[in-house]
Amino acid sequence: MSTMDIDTDYFDSYFDLNVHELMLKDKPRTLSYKNAIELNSIDFKDKIVLDVGSGTGILSMFAAKAGAKRVYAVEGSLMAGYCELLVRENHLHNIITVLSKRMENVDSEDIPEGKVDIIISEWMGFYLFHESMLNSVIEARDRWLKPNGIMFPSRAELYLQPVNMEPLYQSKVNFWNDVYGFDFSILKGPALERIHGVPLTDYIDKKQLVTEDEGQVTGKLIREFNFSTVTCEELEDIVIDHIKYSFPLNERTKGLKAIQGFCIWFICYFEGSQKTVTLSTAPGDPETHWKQTTIPLPGDIQLQGGEEIICRLQMKQDEDNSRRYVLTLDFPDEDEEEGTTNQDIQVHSIENIDEYQDIEEEKIE
Amino acid sequence: MSTMDIDTDYFDSYFDLNVHELMLKDKPRTLSYKNAIELNSIDFKDKIVLDVGSGTGILSMFAAKAGAKRVYAVEGSLMAGYCELLVRENHLHNIITVLSKRMENVDSEDIPEGKVDIIISEWMGFYLFHESMLNSVIEARDRWLKPNGIMFPSRAELYLQPVNMEPLYQSKVNFWNDVYGFDFSILKGPALERIHGVPLTDYIDKKQLVTEDEGQVTGKLIREFNFSTVTCEELEDIVIDHIKYSFPLNERTKGLKAIQGFCIWFICYFEGSQKTVTLSTAPGDPETHWKQTTIPLPGDIQLQGGEEIICRLQMKQDEDNSRRYVLTLDFPDEDEEEGTTNQDIQVHSIENIDEYQDIEEEKIE
Repeated sequence: MSTMDIDTDYFDSYFDLNVHELMLKDKPRTLSYKNAIELNSIDFKDKIVLDVGSGTGILSMFAAKAGAKRVYAVEGSLMAGYCELLVRENHLHNIITVLSKRMENVDSEDIPEGKVDIIISEWMGFYLFHESMLNSVIEARDRWLKPNGIMFPSRAELYLQPVNMEPLYQSKVNFWNDVYGFDFSILKGPALERIHGVPLTDYIDKKQLVTEDEGQVTGKLIREFNFSTVTCEELEDIVIDHIKYSFPLNERTKGLKAIQGFCIWFICYFEGSQKTVTLSTAPGDPETHWKQTTIPLPGDIQLQGGEEIICRLQMKQDEDNSRRYVLTLDFPDEDEEEGTTNQDIQVHSIENIDEYQDIEEEKIE
Repeated sequence: MSTMDIDTDYFDSYFDLNVHELMLKDKPRTLSYKNAIELNSIDFKDKIVLDVGSGTGILSMFAAKAGAKRVYAVEGSLMAGYCELLVRENHLHNIITVLSKRMENVDSEDIPEGKVDIIISEWMGFYLFHESMLNSVIEARDRWLKPNGIMFPSRAELYLQPVNMEPLYQSKVNFWNDVYGFDFSILKGPALERIHGVPLTDYIDKKQLVTEDEGQVTGKLIREFNFSTVTCEELEDIVIDHIKYSFPLNERTKGLKAIQGFCIWFICYFEGSQKTVTLSTAPGDPETHWKQTTIPLPGDIQLQGGEEIICRLQMKQDEDNSRRYVLTLDFPDEDEEEGTTNQDIQVHSIENIDEYQDIEEEKIE
């Protein structure tokens, strides 16, 4: 698929009411933007706002209600037509200007002020970077944001923590041990193959996290990203080296479960002048449509206490489709030269759109 | 797509462990076969059994355990390989012969006995007929079943009942009335369009059924099918005329909800010599992977009491893909000539395989 086709597919996928419904109904997501904007109205009052990928225009409306002088809602999919109608219907067309084009095609005639005070955008994908929409936001920032202008969200933290996947294994693998009295265990191999090799986008229970210290439940922060300074180049190949987990030999270690995968999640921060608002996608926090992303291990790591696990996470934009990332987890062998690994897990990220459609499937009750 | 491609896709879809896992984990489904076979072991003891579309071979194993002399497990997808291994693993290879071919290619060398005593098959699709696998079972019956041989399941009943779809409308349509304080109601039109025109495969709550009499909760039986006698021709274009629902004017009618769709479900019966076992997919009964199929109306029917609704359901094999049906609901105008309609709802059935994949999406908890 050419880049043009990929982008066409990408924008087409957002001309789907179900996707917008899903995102709007994700309350931790939408309310964090609403709160961040309302509780920091000083940052919006009489200001010029740019909303990158406005969708239905909900974030632009929050900004307009918070007192913005002018909001540019840029939407590259056909949702721009609905966005325009919704803005008008809510009598906000004197404040919000809908630009029905892709961000990179916005020019100085579209934004006569030349610069904006604040950029708002909900660009986050699975494991933060899936979809690579942040690139468009960075380009918009470099071209349109005033020096010392504000980015909403302003920064994010990426977390990685070993997890026990017993519930999944029980359901998808051990199930075959006894199927109505028959031994179907030869199907465990094929079932395991289906689990390994692709990251799992699903909710991880907080209890599944395998943590080092009794008190630690929030997972290991492995990288911070500041959206005022991060560059597109930095997002091409993100390598996080020497991530260390220690499981000391003590009473508690006896109760530790085997490690069957590593779970990734992110927390975004809106650092306004008045208040910092948080959007967490961590296990245990209210569920969002981002769920968590778990990289399964090809084999279990059994813990007895006294272990130290050192790993390296690489998130590299797919050469064939830069909207996807290849996630690779390495366990470098300390005895050998740097760069060699004793266990190498490479997993390709999945297509976002299919996920959305799966999520969308709902029950009538 | 040519018929050959459609069939290739069809058989490919069953070489998917997730699909078999889903079906095996559907307890009302699998247990009804298990019970039907175990509780009617007299029909299996020392008999020749044909299992059409054996998948993993679970039904063949039930039959072997019930004392069958010989079971022919016919599987046209690559699952036949696993089926063979599972049969061997469970030491049933002296009884079960796996035939790795499509039913229509089975010949007299495959079944040297020439005839079988009983045919077991789990061929049912959404709204009973989706996938049109019954055709293969009928052809197998006409060629291989002894006179007075047994079909499992032996017969089915098809039900149709008006339903209130308020939970769906509330969630998918009325949601747009107030989106975080903004009026998004212009999106109700597009949202409604998405609901109308395609049948909904989802669970309907028993409380959503709009019933005529206080006592009636099981829905209207509109057609019975006897699998010992039904022909392939009869399945090409199933028309059920003059289906009547009366809502008399009385105290109770005041509480009736609007009709927004018509829900289809089926109940299968295994009429063995010892016991009749039932497999119900009705609203209110334990959930199966068949869910229910609801044809949404383009507009609500408001009930005030005194109404009589007469409709006609047509289930016609799609000319382009005989594994799909076009479902059409008509409301004939009694004043006009027969054949004309005052309200015509035509809905195409959806692809089965996507549905399975959606269903498959599971939570880790």
